[in-house]
Amino acid sequence: MIPLTGTALADALFKPRAIALVGISDDPAKTAARPLKFLRAAGFKGSLYNVNPSRALVQGERAYPSLAELPEKPDHAFILTNTGPAMAAVEDCGKLGIPLATVLAGGFSEQGHEGAEREAQLKALGKQYGVRLLGPSSIGLVHVPSHLILTANAAFAEPGLPAGGIFCASHSGSLIGALTSRGRARGIGFNGLVSVGGECDLSVGEICEATLDDPDVTGYLLFLETTRNSAALRRFALGAAARGKPVVAYKLGRSEAAAELAVSHTGALAGEDDVADTLLRDCGVARVETFEGLLEALPLLRRIPLRKPARKPTVGVVTTTGGGAAMAVDQLGVRGVEVVAPSAETLQKLAAAGIDASGGRIVDLTLAGTKYEVMKGTLDILMGAPEFDLILAAVGSSARYQPDLAVKPVIDSRDGGKPLACFVVPEAPEALRQLSAAGVPNFRTPEGCGDVIASALARRVPNPVIAPADSGSGGVRLLNEADAYSLFERVGIPHAPTAVLAVDAPVPELPFPYPVVAKVLHDRVAHKTDVGGVVLAIRNAEELAAAMAGIRTSVEAALPGITIDKVLVQAMTAAVGEVLVGLRRDAEVGPLVMLAAGGVLTEIYRDRSLRLAPITLDSAWDMIGEVKALQALAGYRGRPAGDLGAVAHTLVAVSQLALVDDVTILEAEINPLLVLPASQGVLAVDALVSLRDN
Amino acid sequence: MIPLTGTALADALFKPRAIALVGISDDPAKTAARPLKFLRAAGFKGSLYNVNPSRALVQGERAYPSLAELPEKPDHAFILTNTGPAMAAVEDCGKLGIPLATVLAGGFSEQGHEGAEREAQLKALGKQYGVRLLGPSSIGLVHVPSHLILTANAAFAEPGLPAGGIFCASHSGSLIGALTSRGRARGIGFNGLVSVGGECDLSVGEICEATLDDPDVTGYLLFLETTRNSAALRRFALGAAARGKPVVAYKLGRSEAAAELAVSHTGALAGEDDVADTLLRDCGVARVETFEGLLEALPLLRRIPLRKPARKPTVGVVTTTGGGAAMAVDQLGVRGVEVVAPSAETLQKLAAAGIDASGGRIVDLTLAGTKYEVMKGTLDILMGAPEFDLILAAVGSSARYQPDLAVKPVIDSRDGGKPLACFVVPEAPEALRQLSAAGVPNFRTPEGCGDVIASALARRVPNPVIAPADSGSGGVRLLNEADAYSLFERVGIPHAPTAVLAVDAPVPELPFPYPVVAKVLHDRVAHKTDVGGVVLAIRNAEELAAAMAGIRTSVEAALPGITIDKVLVQAMTAAVGEVLVGLRRDAEVGPLVMLAAGGVLTEIYRDRSLRLAPITLDSAWDMIGEVKALQALAGYRGRPAGDLGAVAHTLVAVSQLALVDDVTILEAEINPLLVLPASQGVLAVDALVSLRDN
Repeated sequence: MIPLTGTALADALFKPRAIALVGISDDPAKTAARPLKFLRAAGFKGSLYNVNPSRALVQGERAYPSLAELPEKPDHAFILTNTGPAMAAVEDCGKLGIPLATVLAGGFSEQGHEGAEREAQLKALGKQYGVRLLGPSSIGLVHVPSHLILTANAAFAEPGLPAGGIFCASHSGSLIGALTSRGRARGIGFNGLVSVGGECDLSVGEICEATLDDPDVTGYLLFLETTRNSAALRRFALGAAARGKPVVAYKLGRSEAAAELAVSHTGALAGEDDVADTLLRDCGVARVETFEGLLEALPLLRRIPLRKPARKPTVGVVTTTGGGAAMAVDQLGVRGVEVVAPSAETLQKLAAAGIDASGGRIVDLTLAGTKYEVMKGTLDILMGAPEFDLILAAVGSSARYQPDLAVKPVIDSRDGGKPLACFVVPEAPEALRQLSAAGVPNFRTPEGCGDVIASALARRVPNPVIAPADSGSGGVRLLNEADAYSLFERVGIPHAPTAVLAVDAPVPELPFPYPVVAKVLHDRVAHKTDVGGVVLAIRNAEELAAAMAGIRTSVEAALPGITIDKVLVQAMTAAVGEVLVGLRRDAEVGPLVMLAAGGVLTEIYRDRSLRLAPITLDSAWDMIGEVKALQALAGYRGRPAGDLGAVAHTLVAVSQLALVDDVTILEAEINPLLVLPASQGVLAVDALVSLRDN
Repeated sequence: MIPLTGTALADALFKPRAIALVGISDDPAKTAARPLKFLRAAGFKGSLYNVNPSRALVQGERAYPSLAELPEKPDHAFILTNTGPAMAAVEDCGKLGIPLATVLAGGFSEQGHEGAEREAQLKALGKQYGVRLLGPSSIGLVHVPSHLILTANAAFAEPGLPAGGIFCASHSGSLIGALTSRGRARGIGFNGLVSVGGECDLSVGEICEATLDDPDVTGYLLFLETTRNSAALRRFALGAAARGKPVVAYKLGRSEAAAELAVSHTGALAGEDDVADTLLRDCGVARVETFEGLLEALPLLRRIPLRKPARKPTVGVVTTTGGGAAMAVDQLGVRGVEVVAPSAETLQKLAAAGIDASGGRIVDLTLAGTKYEVMKGTLDILMGAPEFDLILAAVGSSARYQPDLAVKPVIDSRDGGKPLACFVVPEAPEALRQLSAAGVPNFRTPEGCGDVIASALARRVPNPVIAPADSGSGGVRLLNEADAYSLFERVGIPHAPTAVLAVDAPVPELPFPYPVVAKVLHDRVAHKTDVGGVVLAIRNAEELAAAMAGIRTSVEAALPGITIDKVLVQAMTAAVGEVLVGLRRDAEVGPLVMLAAGGVLTEIYRDRSLRLAPITLDSAWDMIGEVKALQALAGYRGRPAGDLGAVAHTLVAVSQLALVDDVTILEAEINPLLVLPASQGVLAVDALVSLRDN
């Protein structure tokens, strides 16, 4: 059977004509009894076939002893049995031509070596017969327009599931229930929810991609535990960006990142949380940090287009509660979003409307009184003021008692010239629901407010160039430093002047002045200093001859079996600072370019910036802005400034190494790249390159 | 009149016999009409006197033209008029012997120079007559047991204010309304709430202190915009700690801290957010970062005693939802709280009870099923397991539909051997209310959960020693480096061997070997390097003679009018690292001891630790653990370890400088303190000390 993809896959998942419930239980207390109950309660219109080898009736309905005996071929088999029988049921699906099976059972790769083998077998079964698999450990899926509550999640016993435009995919099955209940309280409804489980076949990315052209889906909400299958995720996200459908993600794993010491060496990037950050950002996905923000984000994302890196966006704040607004301003500030005061022109317009806002950063209406006309008049002026990219209204206790006073004017201003959001300071569920119903982004905590606004404003137009992945086969080969520089020259990465000298030959006249540094040159010596392979500050030819001889002796003693016949000699240059620049073809997310300051303090502070390669010059400047240590090279406190423009150009060049197509560069690290004074450029003075030996 | 303090003050504030409402309005739409409405609606039993010069009747009740004409002297006048008449009313209170006045009006120090003068006048009036003042800009106060809704905050129009044990003081008037409504939704009630406004007289600290012995008050909740009046705040907090009454604070101002570049020089500490952190922590106050955490914290604080610095506390997690629990674990992890797996012994007990928890860090009951007996049985085992300091139960969707399954066993386990808290993953307001009613700490977001648990576990026994404050009068005098070392010797701070030489005399034999450094020695030369006053790596007496002459020439040229006759010569010592250690008598919070790594990167990363001085050795180790850069001196990645024990002893010694009583040290900075290899000690090699010239 040809495996389902695209719209056909989406139809089988969300608009099936007929479903088989394999292992459905008659005992209403059992988890395996739920899907039938829920589907009947929801009024699912398709055919339902119960499969249970030990009962003729299940929950009062007819049951069949096996899939083979069903009167028609279902589109989808939801397999509710334990692990062993589930494997058999998948094989039955294959033999019978049932194109899609969802496996509820666990007992696969989360259970050690044996489980991993079982998962490989399951995967092979799916491949062999062309059955698409959801799970294992999938608690099922829900599609509201089809009345399809095909899940064993107890939360879906609650009737009256609200419909909406959000499509949710989650690695955690229990979370689709928690998100639904939290959404109900806020008037937020879903189009569909899928528990993707272990993703042995169908992934978050492929499932979401299959729904991209469904006009009922207006945005995506992802609860992620991992970024495996990132190629599919990226393809989906680019498609969503192209269609203007926003994507928000909450990803577990921040704490591992916080707990582990940062590792500046690009070789250790994989699986670290900032790699996930990079993947999501470079796909145009907004990553939120707060659970509540995950539910609150989409209305705002819908109103803020994906941006190119540019000047920092600014927020204007109007409020009926100074203290409440200050909390939101604080939360924006810690996330790097600036709240700015109205311009002189805007202040004048406000004054003409009777509002004195000359006091400070926010427009505080406390003195003017909480009245519809005051709030509406102020919003009319702020929404037209060019100094703001977004307006936030922070509404105080009146939101609970008299939403007409300060909440309604926010709703009535929603179609103004720019995004408008509302933070409701008291407990005011009805006001939040009114705002949601009107499509106005609304927040019940200052943290969610700061989180969502910051991540919405940080969203970037996705990087459309997808550089080739690593084949993963073949050995790994190191380049010596001279060959690495040759490779760098192809993309325009400058390095310090060098000469390759034979250790046995007399020292020639160098094409650059002394002092110089001499370094062992050999494909198999990566850590040159550790083996006595580097001599610094050589002042003349005699010292150089001695240094070369010394290097040979030291290295050959340290690494028996290696013969040293060449040395790389390099000009020594004074610099105002150093940075580490590198490229790594990450096994999970693809080629990454990195900027860091290098050194032990930078490792401790985990101070680095990553992007999917290749990058644009704009992105390179973005990266420079993200590495705190680079402030020290930007003229910090009167220190000499370095040539950051040359750093930016070098980052672009390094990222181009991802596209070199005659060799597959696994890793290229320049540590350090010397940063010379402003407008004097940069120079690589060490290089480590490894290639896939195809 | 003798100003009210202590219990008499608390009685006038919260249990007044008679109140005057000055400027009370007849127009129900006006803010100034609210207190009378609210007091009548709440059934306040004391006498109410309306004062309004232009009406004989207000809201149907008798009004008096002035305070002078009241039939009795009220305990408290709530002044609702504009700024000017409010000043006059305070003077009336003074003349009539009314001991307490609350001023609603603004127009004081928040309004520039003129406002500040007005506030000084107001303060002087209070002092002159002995009238205690609440405000200005106070929206009033509420005391539930007395039915005293003496406020113009519109939120208190809502009837049925729930009573509880929490006393709340807030710089923001509107927040007392928002906290009340948010508390209602969670079943959290208050004993009293005070809007302290501009604190021209009565401060957060003094008001709270006056209620310390009220048995109805079981904990304190502070919403702070500033830490001014910190002496009173500290006195209150020490009293609360002594009585076992927990205090939680939310303080605005994180973002200024985040936005500003850190300043490592101790002279610029004042007003920075980590100074507020330090004050609160050293008073035993838990500072939370989330607004929701502010309301959620007290039940947990009540169950976690104040701790001495010791090993990191550990948390055990049990859950019915893997994804939900993982969010909480993540939020604990980013705040440095470790979730640990059950011990082998505990796993065995769980296995005997039919629970397989061998999988990982958390006890996930998903497979065992969401049942009362399963959760209760697991909690019984975990609550008795010595490897955990606290147990967190994360409950999934059943909390919404069947709280009896997994929420009730948490409630029934609340009196076990250790603190127990509950994170409720779905929307489940009734479960949260049941948990609150039973006194079980409960959280509705993973962020609030991580925030409160982390800040509860971080609470420390307050530092009971209050070092003298700076008198603030007299000039400031610098010590030269030699005199600074003499002062350091009194408290046992080691410094590198030094000799003071006369510039004119021949170089004597030094009591320590070459190489040495020579530094200009003069009370008025603080920045020695800037004026050519330092020569490094001097190898013999000839070079030293030349260096001394050179220093004299350079410094006298750079600083005309200064005569240099002495030089400090110091042994040069190899070290594995350097730190900055300092003491500063902060004008707001008192003497602070600081540890930082010094240097531009440390400034950029804002990497430092502060404590109120003096400190104990335990606190010194705490500080060392808080400065990330010091990992590089703790044997990080095979680097040589420094003598951190000697750093700890030196921190204690530096903090003792706060207690030296024959001089008032304003600032003492050792930058750098050389850290020698393990067990070889530390050495101060530069010192800057300034004294108050009394």
